[in-house]
Amino acid sequence: MDRAHGRRCDRLRHTSITRHCQNYPPGSALIEVGNTKVICAATIADHVPSFLKGTGQGWLTAEYSMLPSATRDRVSRERNKLSGRTQEIQRLIGRALRSVVDLNAIGERTITIDCDVIQADGGTRCAAITGALVALVEACDTIYKVGGTFPVTDFVAAISVGLNADGEALLDLNYDEDSTAVVDCNVVMSGRGQFIEIQSTGEGHPFSRRDFDKMIDFAELGIDELISIQKDALGSDLVWRVGRVG
Amino acid sequence: MDRAHGRRCDRLRHTSITRHCQNYPPGSALIEVGNTKVICAATIADHVPSFLKGTGQGWLTAEYSMLPSATRDRVSRERNKLSGRTQEIQRLIGRALRSVVDLNAIGERTITIDCDVIQADGGTRCAAITGALVALVEACDTIYKVGGTFPVTDFVAAISVGLNADGEALLDLNYDEDSTAVVDCNVVMSGRGQFIEIQSTGEGHPFSRRDFDKMIDFAELGIDELISIQKDALGSDLVWRVGRVG
Amino acid sequence: MDRAHGRRCDRLRHTSITRHCQNYPPGSALIEVGNTKVICAATIADHVPSFLKGTGQGWLTAEYSMLPSATRDRVSRERNKLSGRTQEIQRLIGRALRSVVDLNAIGERTITIDCDVIQADGGTRCAAITGALVALVEACDTIYKVGGTFPVTDFVAAISVGLNADGEALLDLNYDEDSTAVVDCNVVMSGRGQFIEIQSTGEGHPFSRRDFDKMIDFAELGIDELISIQKDALGSDLVWRVGRVG
Amino acid sequence: MDRAHGRRCDRLRHTSITRHCQNYPPGSALIEVGNTKVICAATIADHVPSFLKGTGQGWLTAEYSMLPSATRDRVSRERNKLSGRTQEIQRLIGRALRSVVDLNAIGERTITIDCDVIQADGGTRCAAITGALVALVEACDTIYKVGGTFPVTDFVAAISVGLNADGEALLDLNYDEDSTAVVDCNVVMSGRGQFIEIQSTGEGHPFSRRDFDKMIDFAELGIDELISIQKDALGSDLVWRVGRVG
Amino acid sequence: MDRAHGRRCDRLRHTSITRHCQNYPPGSALIEVGNTKVICAATIADHVPSFLKGTGQGWLTAEYSMLPSATRDRVSRERNKLSGRTQEIQRLIGRALRSVVDLNAIGERTITIDCDVIQADGGTRCAAITGALVALVEACDTIYKVGGTFPVTDFVAAISVGLNADGEALLDLNYDEDSTAVVDCNVVMSGRGQFIEIQSTGEGHPFSRRDFDKMIDFAELGIDELISIQKDALGSDLVWRVGRVG
Amino acid sequence: MDRAHGRRCDRLRHTSITRHCQNYPPGSALIEVGNTKVICAATIADHVPSFLKGTGQGWLTAEYSMLPSATRDRVSRERNKLSGRTQEIQRLIGRALRSVVDLNAIGERTITIDCDVIQADGGTRCAAITGALVALVEACDTIYKVGGTFPVTDFVAAISVGLNADGEALLDLNYDEDSTAVVDCNVVMSGRGQFIEIQSTGEGHPFSRRDFDKMIDFAELGIDELISIQKDALGSDLVWRVGRVG
Repeated sequence: MDRAHGRRCDRLRHTSITRHCQNYPPGSALIEVGNTKVICAATIADHVPSFLKGTGQGWLTAEYSMLPSATRDRVSRERNKLSGRTQEIQRLIGRALRSVVDLNAIGERTITIDCDVIQADGGTRCAAITGALVALVEACDTIYKVGGTFPVTDFVAAISVGLNADGEALLDLNYDEDSTAVVDCNVVMSGRGQFIEIQSTGEGHPFSRRDFDKMIDFAELGIDELISIQKDALGSDLVWRVGRVG
Repeated sequence: MDRAHGRRCDRLRHTSITRHCQNYPPGSALIEVGNTKVICAATIADHVPSFLKGTGQGWLTAEYSMLPSATRDRVSRERNKLSGRTQEIQRLIGRALRSVVDLNAIGERTITIDCDVIQADGGTRCAAITGALVALVEACDTIYKVGGTFPVTDFVAAISVGLNADGEALLDLNYDEDSTAVVDCNVVMSGRGQFIEIQSTGEGHPFSRRDFDKMIDFAELGIDELISIQKDALGSDLVWRVGRVG
Repeated sequence: MDRAHGRRCDRLRHTSITRHCQNYPPGSALIEVGNTKVICAATIADHVPSFLKGTGQGWLTAEYSMLPSATRDRVSRERNKLSGRTQEIQRLIGRALRSVVDLNAIGERTITIDCDVIQADGGTRCAAITGALVALVEACDTIYKVGGTFPVTDFVAAISVGLNADGEALLDLNYDEDSTAVVDCNVVMSGRGQFIEIQSTGEGHPFSRRDFDKMIDFAELGIDELISIQKDALGSDLVWRVGRVG
Repeated sequence: MDRAHGRRCDRLRHTSITRHCQNYPPGSALIEVGNTKVICAATIADHVPSFLKGTGQGWLTAEYSMLPSATRDRVSRERNKLSGRTQEIQRLIGRALRSVVDLNAIGERTITIDCDVIQADGGTRCAAITGALVALVEACDTIYKVGGTFPVTDFVAAISVGLNADGEALLDLNYDEDSTAVVDCNVVMSGRGQFIEIQSTGEGHPFSRRDFDKMIDFAELGIDELISIQKDALGSDLVWRVGRVG
Repeated sequence: MDRAHGRRCDRLRHTSITRHCQNYPPGSALIEVGNTKVICAATIADHVPSFLKGTGQGWLTAEYSMLPSATRDRVSRERNKLSGRTQEIQRLIGRALRSVVDLNAIGERTITIDCDVIQADGGTRCAAITGALVALVEACDTIYKVGGTFPVTDFVAAISVGLNADGEALLDLNYDEDSTAVVDCNVVMSGRGQFIEIQSTGEGHPFSRRDFDKMIDFAELGIDELISIQKDALGSDLVWRVGRVG
Repeated sequence: MDRAHGRRCDRLRHTSITRHCQNYPPGSALIEVGNTKVICAATIADHVPSFLKGTGQGWLTAEYSMLPSATRDRVSRERNKLSGRTQEIQRLIGRALRSVVDLNAIGERTITIDCDVIQADGGTRCAAITGALVALVEACDTIYKVGGTFPVTDFVAAISVGLNADGEALLDLNYDEDSTAVVDCNVVMSGRGQFIEIQSTGEGHPFSRRDFDKMIDFAELGIDELISIQKDALGSDLVWRVGRVG
């Protein structure tokens, strides 16, 4: 099996995260995974949805969008209603990040995560989650009071794995690989090596338990590397804070 | 761990499927899983979405809805836009059933699967998939020409599994169990014992690979039993047709 | 004139009302009129629309919907906006039931009547009103304090009448009769034999005052019988309460 | 019972119809009924809805709207969705006028009736129907070929009747009378004295058959006078054409 | 260059303003500019948008609409969403009138300006602004307390100018002139001869600075005359109030 | 008057245009004007709106959007309906670019201009037009056949000018200057020094003709410089093509 640029089946594409890519939001990060580029921003508002008013607890919500020019063929803006795909992705990003946020530690505030895809070459939802963690930590630093609980309790990253038509497992599929894969799987894991979400679909081709186990093995490898890249981007001061209580 | 009615952790609730529960659609089935009741209907239209015109190939799409009176607290009708949850469920049902349909064998027709929840006590999306397979086979019989390819190529069923707060795996969660579970997993499998879809979420509680494997073991048991129930409902003549070519 | 099953022009189809057809709402009833089947549910919420806040008075509102599989040809779900037909029916059901409810006696609560058509063979709006009265009485019993005013002040039922192409009046039209009728009339009456609503339309065929009087005669007969069926379904204890003050 | 300006219970308000009140549409009429003023226009387009293509038959549809400044309290524009009330009125106007149009005689064209209320003092839907008939006849004259069938087959007019709190029947209610009436009834009749539509509602107060008969008597008187006013507005040439075949 | 009715390039069409053209709103005016006719109404509500609550300051907003029958070819009602053109016009009318209103002097109230075009022959947005000023002054008189500040601080009027295909400047274009103009310019000016808004577009034909200056010269002439017509319509008592403080 | 970084009243901010900032669309450019950053992309589709089918002529349309994180305070996505502001900007961009495109030379194709604001510090609509011209020329090169007519006939750029509270004219306002300006003016000009659009608004402060002339003088200076920057970005080969016929 030949992947672009001689990449091995169990290797990520070249991945980088650039902090502070926008001037105004309290947290922002540009993540590049091969040709995929996503701007992730975290903003904080001093109110919560009505079901949380008076509870002392905060909320985190996520939005995901693509520039129409991000893809091979121009994609229409979702100006009337969101597609099912977009809603699924937004809900996934929100769940993934909420799983590592102590909502009591942020008080009655709402953190909004905006993931805007500037260029799309496969794996945008996973890149969005991985980049957003960095923006989120940056933003939380602005509301953190030394000696209190830092709101982000752990790292979280996401990666795609799949099976190609020959039944080989592949880590981190680009657009061409994704289009021809027979099984498509997204895995979200925490910094402590546990699973937060597994979504595996074999519409065109049911898969055996053995194939599935192989994909999960690859995902564990990839997540490990992504979390290292997150830590490099954040630097030791912020890394030290994640998960600290008091 | 005590479940309602002394049910064991690895057992389904009482499940039955009643064929032909409506007079007009070519296929219909009422599935009852404990207190959960879903009417599944399959109808066939002589046209296809525009992207399939002239290809000789058909399509299958699914819709899911709840009566407002199906739940403990009345749930509003989705009359302006669909919630993300409903869209996810509809897309899941559609993918699950398309994975066992030979779209060439149905010609340029569209099969619509309607899943209407009459009463909801947990597991409605899985019940919808399991019941819809029966309605689908019944409906396909009306367009099947003896000697041709029967459009349904395999059985398909779905079941929920989860982890409760004590870390025990549970098969087929009812509403109360689902509300308190820390991990929630839906599994769709084919009649040949392969996986079509796995969706596992641990928003409140990341899970280990060992816990995950235990849940998948339980799901395999449950699916096996559900497919037996589908076969009993369809009867030997229709069971014989599923997967036959010519 | 031959009607299906030798039915006479002035006779109803076989009609039955089954109470408590769902587990969760405080009132529910399945009404079957020939092949027409409607689930009617009444739920009670502890708030009122803003125009009633602080008045001590309650409200009643109604919603009507059909399963897509309820009809001969699949009917689309109304997920973007309601058709004019659906809105007219909802408004009619709401007016009919409000005419027999003492809104002061329910306090600042909102009763929602949900009428979901499971199978449609003509006369669904009339069946919905007739079945909903039973669900409403059942639900009101849960908020009734003995010695107070029972919120339902009278019975109410509805029936269709029409003129066929030969100018004959017909009571309780099924779908085939309704499709070929030249005049279509819906009549809502109270348990005391007075009129609450008359809607008579002769789009294809204007009608004389004499024909109209004949239709109203038939409607009076039909309503009488429907109210007996409601009373049988409710049983003497609940029948006794309707209309009692203190 | 004292009505404004000493009007008797069985008398219309002062009513006039002014033809050709706009320059551009082929038919237009301003109807004034007391303080109620409605501009009615009829336009003709050379196409039909898809269900009529190729049938040689035309269609007629109606729209109804109010200026926000037409009422005592400003009423919001219906820019997002139509209220149930507006939809009911539009459907009523359409049915009323279609009942006197020979859709084959207009060929594959669509006539749109626009009724825009400039000032509202009760009875706007009835005024709209009565005025629209005049605009319709005027517009049909532009597509009529001498010797052919004139598309309008009869006159049609509408009037409101009601019962006040004292149980007296009233013809042609103004806004104040309408607000306090306990029964409200709209009647549409043809030039030949037959009924096209009767809609009678007693939400606050069920009514007896005798009261109902009294209201219908009044409506017959009012319609008679309205049709005379229509004939005066149209003039003998156009009156002569209505209902002529060849 | 020949204009209809021998009109010179620098002359307005015949223009009149009729006050109090509707019974119910506190201010209303019918403006006729040639064949263009617009009903302008001003209503006052005792609340403000949320961003102004508690500030003691009021607001003014404008809505613009056309009867479908106002134009040569019937124009559809904007019942689902507003066109960009309508939104631009509404925003322009609102800005123009707010520029001459002292929002503190009206207290926490909202003035709504409704401009409904009854007949459209070019220049409807300018006619709307010019007519609305008269309705606005009339309405403000109902909330004015003698000795206080009159809320309208100056006159405001608007006029169109353009360049035809021969490069000639034209004042106050009718529909035919507007359709063939290569440059289209709308100018809003105050009673003191200053500019409030200039919008000049040469989509089909860029224009020189000299041509532009010529158009502005014409606009100044036209506005002068329109303000005289406004003053005649209002009468000396109301004219005297405009711009008075205390 | 002190502007940020000692900028003179008649000077632009630092402006740069980077071509080919995205991989997939045929034309793309990132324009940076001070802190304002806009990605402009041009894509070409092989169809036209229905009103142009069969005419041999093409079309150009524009869309404008902001990332929610582009501004000081997070701005909501326009997912249900576009604001009036966004619609005005889109229409302005479309008109500006169409004024320099020969729609016959592109054949029956639609060019879509997407302007996505990554960071907003005032002047985004003008930056969008100026950057989009570069993306447009780049994209048109892909459909240009040597010897034919190059579809872009001239350069076009846009700049803002304004009056501050002291009555001084300012060129190219940043966000802070724009927020406090009393007059706001956007000017679109062609490469030949003619005007395509002038929009000048003095909501809070009417302006004299002399002030207006001063602003236009400044705009002419700014446009001149912007067109030089466009030419530098495009390079001599592409510059040479603009406006060439055959």
